[in-house]
Amino acid sequence: MPHTATKQSIPVERVRRYLEPGPILLVSSRWREKTNIMTMGWHLIMEFSPSLFGCVIAAGNHSFEMIRESRECVVNLPTTQLTDTVVKIGNTSGAGIDKFAEFGLTPLDAEGVNAPLIAECYGNFACRLYDDALIDKYNFFIFEVVSAQVATRPDLPETIHYTGDGVFTVSGKTISRRHLFRPGML
Amino acid sequence: MPHTATKQSIPVERVRRYLEPGPILLVSSRWREKTNIMTMGWHLIMEFSPSLFGCVIAAGNHSFEMIRESRECVVNLPTTQLTDTVVKIGNTSGAGIDKFAEFGLTPLDAEGVNAPLIAECYGNFACRLYDDALIDKYNFFIFEVVSAQVATRPDLPETIHYTGDGVFTVSGKTISRRHLFRPGML
Repeated sequence: MPHTATKQSIPVERVRRYLEPGPILLVSSRWREKTNIMTMGWHLIMEFSPSLFGCVIAAGNHSFEMIRESRECVVNLPTTQLTDTVVKIGNTSGAGIDKFAEFGLTPLDAEGVNAPLIAECYGNFACRLYDDALIDKYNFFIFEVVSAQVATRPDLPETIHYTGDGVFTVSGKTISRRHLFRPGML
Repeated sequence: MPHTATKQSIPVERVRRYLEPGPILLVSSRWREKTNIMTMGWHLIMEFSPSLFGCVIAAGNHSFEMIRESRECVVNLPTTQLTDTVVKIGNTSGAGIDKFAEFGLTPLDAEGVNAPLIAECYGNFACRLYDDALIDKYNFFIFEVVSAQVATRPDLPETIHYTGDGVFTVSGKTISRRHLFRPGML
Protein backbone atom coordinates (compact mmCIF):
# COMPACT_ATOMS: atom_id res chain seq x y z
CA MET A 1 0.00 0.00 0.00
CA PRO A 2 1.48 3.39 -0.91
CA HIS A 3 2.15 5.94 1.76
CA THR A 4 -0.02 8.98 1.86
CA ALA A 5 1.51 11.76 -0.20
CA THR A 6 1.77 15.44 0.65
CA LYS A 7 -1.15 17.20 -1.02
CA GLN A 8 -2.09 20.69 -2.07
CA SER A 9 -5.46 22.30 -2.73
CA ILE A 10 -6.16 23.32 -6.30
CA PRO A 11 -8.91 25.50 -7.80
CA VAL A 12 -11.94 23.35 -8.63
CA GLU A 13 -11.97 24.56 -12.24
CA ARG A 14 -8.61 22.77 -12.65
CA VAL A 15 -9.87 19.24 -11.99
CA ARG A 16 -10.21 18.50 -15.73
CA ARG A 17 -6.44 18.07 -15.77
CA TYR A 18 -6.83 14.86 -13.76
CA LEU A 19 -10.29 13.63 -14.75
CA GLU A 20 -10.61 14.39 -18.48
CA PRO A 21 -7.97 11.76 -19.42
CA GLY A 22 -10.52 9.13 -18.36
CA PRO A 23 -8.96 7.22 -15.45
CA ILE A 24 -10.66 4.68 -13.25
CA LEU A 25 -11.85 6.41 -10.07
CA LEU A 26 -12.82 5.42 -6.55
CA VAL A 27 -15.98 7.02 -5.17
CA SER A 28 -16.29 7.25 -1.40
CA SER A 29 -19.53 8.05 0.41
CA ARG A 30 -21.12 8.23 3.85
CA TRP A 31 -24.76 7.79 4.79
CA ARG A 32 -26.15 7.23 8.28
CA GLU A 33 -22.63 6.73 9.68
CA LYS A 34 -21.78 3.95 7.23
CA THR A 35 -19.08 4.56 4.63
CA ASN A 36 -18.50 2.84 1.33
CA ILE A 37 -16.24 2.87 -1.73
CA MET A 38 -17.00 1.93 -5.33
CA THR A 39 -14.96 1.76 -8.53
CA MET A 40 -16.15 3.93 -11.42
CA GLY A 41 -15.18 4.27 -15.06
CA TRP A 42 -18.12 6.02 -16.72
CA HIS A 43 -17.64 9.75 -16.13
CA LEU A 44 -16.97 13.07 -17.81
CA ILE A 45 -16.19 16.72 -17.16
CA MET A 46 -19.20 18.90 -18.04
CA GLU A 47 -18.17 22.47 -17.19
CA PHE A 48 -15.23 24.44 -15.79
CA SER A 49 -17.18 26.92 -13.65
CA PRO A 50 -19.22 25.81 -11.87
CA SER A 51 -16.97 22.75 -11.85
CA LEU A 52 -19.38 20.07 -13.07
CA PHE A 53 -18.67 16.36 -13.22
CA GLY A 54 -21.11 13.76 -14.53
CA CYS A 55 -21.04 10.01 -13.96
CA VAL A 56 -23.06 6.82 -14.10
CA ILE A 57 -23.52 4.97 -10.81
CA ALA A 58 -25.42 1.78 -11.58
CA ALA A 59 -28.46 1.28 -9.37
CA GLY A 60 -27.20 -2.16 -8.38
CA ASN A 61 -24.28 -0.65 -6.48
CA HIS A 62 -24.57 -0.39 -2.71
CA SER A 63 -23.25 3.17 -3.12
CA PHE A 64 -26.16 4.23 -5.32
CA GLU A 65 -28.69 4.90 -2.57
CA MET A 66 -26.03 6.18 -0.17
CA ILE A 67 -25.00 8.85 -2.65
CA ARG A 68 -28.52 9.64 -3.81
CA GLU A 69 -29.68 10.10 -0.22
CA SER A 70 -26.64 11.97 1.10
CA ARG A 71 -26.36 13.95 -2.17
CA GLU A 72 -22.58 13.96 -2.01
CA CYS A 73 -19.44 11.89 -2.41
CA VAL A 74 -15.70 12.19 -2.88
CA VAL A 75 -14.20 11.23 -6.23
CA ASN A 76 -10.72 9.84 -5.59
CA LEU A 77 -8.02 9.30 -8.21
CA PRO A 78 -5.98 6.11 -7.66
CA THR A 79 -2.69 5.34 -9.38
CA THR A 80 -1.20 2.06 -10.53
CA GLN A 81 0.08 1.34 -7.02
CA LEU A 82 -3.56 0.72 -6.08
CA THR A 83 -4.53 -1.38 -9.12
CA ASP A 84 -5.27 -4.57 -7.20
CA THR A 85 -7.21 -2.65 -4.56
CA VAL A 86 -9.25 -0.90 -7.25
CA VAL A 87 -10.22 -4.24 -8.78
CA LYS A 88 -11.07 -5.79 -5.43
CA ILE A 89 -13.24 -2.81 -4.49
CA GLY A 90 -15.10 -3.22 -7.78
CA ASN A 91 -15.66 -6.90 -7.14
CA THR A 92 -17.10 -6.66 -3.63
CA SER A 93 -20.22 -5.05 -2.22
CA GLY A 94 -20.32 -2.59 0.65
CA ALA A 95 -23.51 -4.29 1.80
CA GLY A 96 -21.40 -6.93 3.53
CA ILE A 97 -18.05 -5.33 4.36
CA ASP A 98 -16.41 -2.11 5.46
CA LYS A 99 -14.23 -1.43 2.43
CA PHE A 100 -11.94 1.07 4.17
CA ALA A 101 -11.09 -1.56 6.77
CA GLU A 102 -11.10 -4.52 4.39
CA PHE A 103 -8.63 -2.92 1.98
CA GLY A 104 -6.49 -0.98 4.46
CA LEU A 105 -7.52 2.46 3.21
CA THR A 106 -7.59 5.57 5.37
CA PRO A 107 -10.74 7.73 5.53
CA LEU A 108 -10.04 11.42 6.14
CA ASP A 109 -12.36 14.41 6.38
CA ALA A 110 -12.96 16.13 3.07
CA GLU A 111 -13.52 19.86 2.74
CA GLY A 112 -17.13 20.77 2.02
CA VAL A 113 -18.77 17.35 2.26
CA ASN A 114 -19.40 14.75 4.99
CA ALA A 115 -18.23 11.86 2.82
CA PRO A 116 -14.68 10.75 3.67
CA LEU A 117 -11.82 11.01 1.21
CA ILE A 118 -9.33 8.18 0.61
CA ALA A 119 -5.93 9.29 1.86
CA GLU A 120 -3.97 6.83 -0.30
CA CYS A 121 -5.26 8.27 -3.60
CA TYR A 122 -3.35 10.83 -5.67
CA GLY A 123 -6.29 13.23 -5.87
CA ASN A 124 -9.48 13.83 -3.91
CA PHE A 125 -12.38 15.79 -5.37
CA ALA A 126 -15.31 16.53 -3.06
CA CYS A 127 -18.62 16.54 -4.90
CA ARG A 128 -22.16 17.73 -4.12
CA LEU A 129 -25.12 16.58 -6.19
CA TYR A 130 -25.94 19.43 -8.58
CA ASP A 131 -28.67 17.95 -10.77
CA ASP A 132 -30.62 14.73 -10.22
CA ALA A 133 -32.77 15.01 -13.36
CA LEU A 134 -31.27 11.97 -15.10
CA ILE A 135 -30.73 9.64 -12.15
CA ASP A 136 -33.97 7.70 -12.54
CA LYS A 137 -33.66 7.30 -16.30
CA TYR A 138 -29.91 6.71 -16.77
CA ASN A 139 -28.36 6.41 -13.27
CA PHE A 140 -26.59 9.60 -14.34
CA PHE A 141 -25.49 11.98 -11.58
CA ILE A 142 -24.30 15.53 -12.17
CA PHE A 143 -22.08 16.79 -9.34
CA GLU A 144 -20.43 20.10 -8.55
CA VAL A 145 -16.83 19.73 -7.39
CA VAL A 146 -16.62 21.90 -4.27
CA SER A 147 -13.03 21.25 -3.20
CA ALA A 148 -10.03 19.55 -4.76
CA GLN A 149 -6.59 18.42 -3.65
CA VAL A 150 -3.83 16.50 -5.42
CA ALA A 151 -0.44 15.13 -4.49
CA THR A 152 2.38 17.62 -4.90
CA ARG A 153 4.26 15.06 -6.98
CA PRO A 154 4.56 13.53 -9.45
CA ASP A 155 3.25 16.34 -11.65
CA LEU A 156 0.88 13.91 -13.38
CA PRO A 157 -0.13 10.56 -11.88
CA GLU A 158 0.27 7.15 -13.50
CA THR A 159 -3.39 6.19 -13.87
CA ILE A 160 -5.30 3.11 -15.02
CA HIS A 161 -7.98 3.17 -17.71
CA TYR A 162 -10.48 0.36 -18.10
CA THR A 163 -11.15 -1.40 -21.41
CA GLY A 164 -13.43 -4.15 -20.03
CA ASP A 165 -12.59 -7.87 -19.77
CA GLY A 166 -10.37 -7.28 -16.74
CA VAL A 167 -7.84 -5.33 -18.81
CA PHE A 168 -6.52 -1.81 -18.18
CA THR A 169 -4.26 0.52 -20.07
CA VAL A 170 -1.80 2.61 -18.08
CA SER A 171 -1.18 6.29 -18.81
CA GLY A 172 2.18 6.64 -20.47
CA LYS A 173 4.34 9.45 -21.75
CA THR A 174 3.28 13.08 -21.86
CA ILE A 175 3.42 15.14 -25.06
CA SER A 176 2.89 18.87 -25.49
CA ARG A 177 1.43 20.56 -28.54
CA ARG A 178 1.09 24.00 -26.95
CA HIS A 179 2.71 25.63 -29.98
CA LEU A 180 -0.22 24.50 -32.16
CA PHE A 181 -2.90 26.04 -29.93
CA ARG A 182 -4.49 29.42 -30.39
CA PRO A 183 -4.06 31.36 -27.11
CA GLY A 184 -7.81 31.39 -26.46
CA MET A 185 -7.93 27.61 -26.71
CA LEU A 186 -5.45 27.00 -23.88
CA MET B 1 -0.80 10.92 -42.52
CA PRO B 2 -1.42 7.25 -41.74
CA HIS B 3 -2.79 4.95 -44.34
CA THR B 4 -6.30 3.68 -43.90
CA ALA B 5 -6.30 0.40 -42.01
CA THR B 6 -8.37 -2.70 -42.66
CA LYS B 7 -11.40 -2.56 -40.40
CA GLN B 8 -13.97 -4.93 -38.99
CA SER B 9 -17.45 -4.34 -37.64
CA ILE B 10 -17.96 -4.99 -33.94
CA PRO B 11 -21.14 -5.27 -31.86
CA VAL B 12 -22.19 -1.83 -30.61
CA GLU B 13 -22.25 -3.02 -26.99
CA ARG B 14 -18.45 -3.48 -27.29
CA VAL B 15 -17.55 0.16 -27.92
CA ARG B 16 -16.72 0.73 -24.24
CA ARG B 17 -13.45 -1.07 -24.90
CA TYR B 18 -12.30 1.87 -26.98
CA LEU B 19 -14.18 4.81 -25.46
CA GLU B 20 -14.19 4.16 -21.71
CA PRO B 21 -10.40 4.73 -21.40
CA GLY B 22 -11.12 8.41 -22.14
CA PRO B 23 -9.30 9.24 -25.39
CA ILE B 24 -9.61 12.42 -27.38
CA LEU B 25 -12.13 11.88 -30.19
CA LEU B 26 -12.98 13.46 -33.52
CA VAL B 27 -16.66 14.03 -34.23
CA SER B 28 -17.73 14.23 -37.86
CA SER B 29 -21.09 15.54 -39.01
CA ARG B 30 -23.11 16.51 -42.09
CA TRP B 31 -25.92 19.02 -42.38
CA ARG B 32 -27.33 20.48 -45.60
CA GLU B 33 -24.48 18.94 -47.63
CA LYS B 34 -21.75 20.57 -45.54
CA THR B 35 -19.49 18.38 -43.44
CA ASN B 36 -17.45 19.26 -40.40
CA ILE B 37 -15.12 17.77 -37.79
CA MET B 38 -14.52 18.77 -34.18
CA THR B 39 -12.23 17.56 -31.41
CA MET B 40 -13.91 16.30 -28.24
CA GLY B 41 -12.65 15.25 -24.83
CA TRP B 42 -15.71 15.41 -22.57
CA HIS B 43 -17.57 12.13 -23.01
CA LEU B 44 -18.63 8.91 -21.27
CA ILE B 45 -20.22 5.53 -21.85
CA MET B 46 -23.72 5.43 -20.30
CA GLU B 47 -25.11 1.96 -21.13
CA PHE B 48 -24.14 -1.24 -22.93
CA SER B 49 -27.51 -2.04 -24.54
CA PRO B 50 -28.81 0.14 -25.97
CA SER B 51 -25.27 1.36 -26.59
CA LEU B 52 -25.43 4.86 -25.10
CA PHE B 53 -22.70 7.48 -25.30
CA GLY B 54 -22.94 10.94 -23.72
CA CYS B 55 -20.83 13.99 -24.51
CA VAL B 56 -20.58 17.74 -24.19
CA ILE B 57 -20.49 19.71 -27.45
CA ALA B 58 -20.04 23.37 -26.53
CA ALA B 59 -22.59 25.64 -28.18
CA GLY B 60 -19.79 27.78 -29.59
CA ASN B 61 -18.67 24.99 -31.88
CA HIS B 62 -19.73 25.16 -35.52
CA SER B 63 -20.63 21.47 -35.16
CA PHE B 64 -23.17 22.14 -32.40
CA GLU B 65 -26.08 23.22 -34.61
CA MET B 66 -25.12 20.78 -37.37
CA ILE B 67 -25.39 17.85 -34.96
CA ARG B 68 -28.43 19.15 -33.15
CA GLU B 69 -30.28 19.66 -36.43
CA SER B 70 -29.16 16.45 -38.18
CA ARG B 71 -29.49 14.51 -34.89
CA GLU B 72 -26.51 12.32 -35.74
CA CYS B 73 -22.73 12.19 -36.03
CA VAL B 74 -19.82 9.78 -36.22
CA VAL B 75 -17.47 9.52 -33.25
CA ASN B 76 -14.00 8.68 -34.59
CA LEU B 77 -11.06 7.43 -32.55
CA PRO B 78 -7.70 8.89 -33.65
CA THR B 79 -4.31 7.54 -32.59
CA THR B 80 -1.02 9.29 -31.92
CA GLN B 81 -0.24 9.36 -35.64
CA LEU B 82 -2.96 12.00 -35.93
CA THR B 83 -1.98 14.11 -32.90
CA ASP B 84 -1.08 17.25 -34.84
CA THR B 85 -4.21 16.94 -36.97
CA VAL B 86 -6.36 16.52 -33.87
CA VAL B 87 -4.94 19.71 -32.37
CA LYS B 88 -5.34 21.67 -35.61
CA ILE B 89 -8.95 20.53 -35.96
CA GLY B 90 -9.60 21.74 -32.43
CA ASN B 91 -8.06 25.12 -33.16
CA THR B 92 -9.98 25.95 -36.33
CA SER B 93 -13.66 26.50 -37.08
CA GLY B 94 -15.67 24.73 -39.73
CA ALA B 95 -17.45 28.01 -40.39
CA GLY B 96 -14.54 29.05 -42.61
CA ILE B 97 -12.96 25.87 -43.93
CA ASP B 98 -13.69 22.34 -45.11
CA LYS B 99 -11.79 20.37 -42.49
CA PHE B 100 -11.69 17.11 -44.46
CA ALA B 101 -9.98 18.92 -47.34
CA GLU B 102 -7.86 21.20 -45.16
CA PHE B 103 -6.37 18.35 -43.17
CA GLY B 104 -6.21 15.66 -45.85
CA LEU B 105 -8.79 13.39 -44.25
CA THR B 106 -11.03 11.00 -46.17
CA PRO B 107 -14.82 11.06 -45.65
CA LEU B 108 -16.49 7.68 -46.15
CA ASP B 109 -20.10 6.57 -45.81
CA ALA B 110 -20.99 5.31 -42.35
CA GLU B 111 -23.51 2.57 -41.71
CA GLY B 112 -26.75 3.86 -40.26
CA VAL B 113 -26.17 7.62 -40.44
CA ASN B 114 -25.68 10.24 -43.12
CA ALA B 115 -22.70 11.81 -41.39
CA PRO B 116 -19.36 10.74 -42.91
CA LEU B 117 -16.78 8.74 -41.00
CA ILE B 118 -13.06 9.60 -41.04
CA ALA B 119 -11.20 6.80 -42.81
CA GLU B 120 -7.84 7.57 -41.19
CA CYS B 121 -9.10 6.96 -37.64
CA TYR B 122 -8.66 3.65 -35.80
CA GLY B 123 -12.34 3.35 -34.94
CA ASN B 124 -15.61 4.80 -36.25
CA PHE B 125 -18.78 4.79 -34.17
CA ALA B 126 -21.97 5.99 -35.88
CA CYS B 127 -24.30 7.78 -33.47
CA ARG B 128 -27.94 8.88 -33.52
CA LEU B 129 -29.28 11.39 -31.03
CA TYR B 130 -31.14 9.41 -28.37
CA ASP B 131 -32.06 12.06 -25.81
CA ASP B 132 -31.86 15.84 -26.18
CA ALA B 133 -33.19 16.66 -22.69
CA LEU B 134 -29.93 18.20 -21.42
CA ILE B 135 -28.69 19.95 -24.55
CA ASP B 136 -30.09 23.36 -23.70
CA LYS B 137 -28.94 23.32 -20.09
CA TYR B 138 -25.52 21.63 -20.34
CA ASN B 139 -24.74 21.17 -24.06
CA PHE B 140 -24.97 17.49 -23.14
CA PHE B 141 -25.94 15.07 -25.93
CA ILE B 142 -26.93 11.45 -25.35
CA PHE B 143 -26.38 9.31 -28.46
CA GLU B 144 -27.12 5.71 -29.34
CA VAL B 145 -24.24 4.01 -31.15
CA VAL B 146 -25.88 2.28 -34.13
CA SER B 147 -22.83 0.83 -35.87
CA ALA B 148 -19.18 0.40 -34.98
CA GLN B 149 -15.98 -0.60 -36.74
CA VAL B 150 -12.35 -0.70 -35.63
CA ALA B 151 -9.02 -1.46 -37.23
CA THR B 152 -8.13 -5.16 -37.19
CA ARG B 153 -4.77 -4.27 -35.63
CA PRO B 154 -3.21 -3.31 -33.36
CA ASP B 155 -5.47 -4.98 -30.80
CA LEU B 156 -5.65 -1.75 -28.80
CA PRO B 157 -4.80 1.66 -30.30
CA GLU B 158 -2.26 4.14 -28.97
CA THR B 159 -4.56 6.99 -28.00
CA ILE B 160 -4.12 10.53 -26.69
CA HIS B 161 -5.80 11.87 -23.56
CA TYR B 162 -6.11 15.57 -22.90
CA THR B 163 -5.04 17.23 -19.64
CA GLY B 164 -5.53 20.84 -20.76
CA ASP B 165 -2.78 23.42 -21.37
CA GLY B 166 -1.90 21.84 -24.71
CA VAL B 167 -0.61 18.68 -23.01
CA PHE B 168 -1.70 15.09 -23.67
CA THR B 169 -0.88 11.76 -22.06
CA VAL B 170 -0.47 8.76 -24.35
CA SER B 171 -1.96 5.36 -23.54
CA GLY B 172 0.84 3.04 -22.50
CA LYS B 173 1.18 -0.56 -21.47
CA THR B 174 -1.73 -2.92 -20.96
CA ILE B 175 -2.22 -4.86 -17.72
CA SER B 176 -4.71 -7.64 -17.00
CA ARG B 177 -6.29 -8.34 -13.64
CA ARG B 178 -8.83 -10.88 -14.93
CA HIS B 179 -7.93 -13.30 -12.16
CA LEU B 180 -9.21 -10.83 -9.55
CA PHE B 181 -12.66 -10.43 -11.15
CA ARG B 182 -15.78 -12.31 -10.22
CA PRO B 183 -17.16 -13.95 -13.39
CA GLY B 184 -20.27 -11.79 -13.37
CA MET B 185 -18.15 -8.62 -13.34
CA LEU B 186 -16.34 -9.42 -16.59
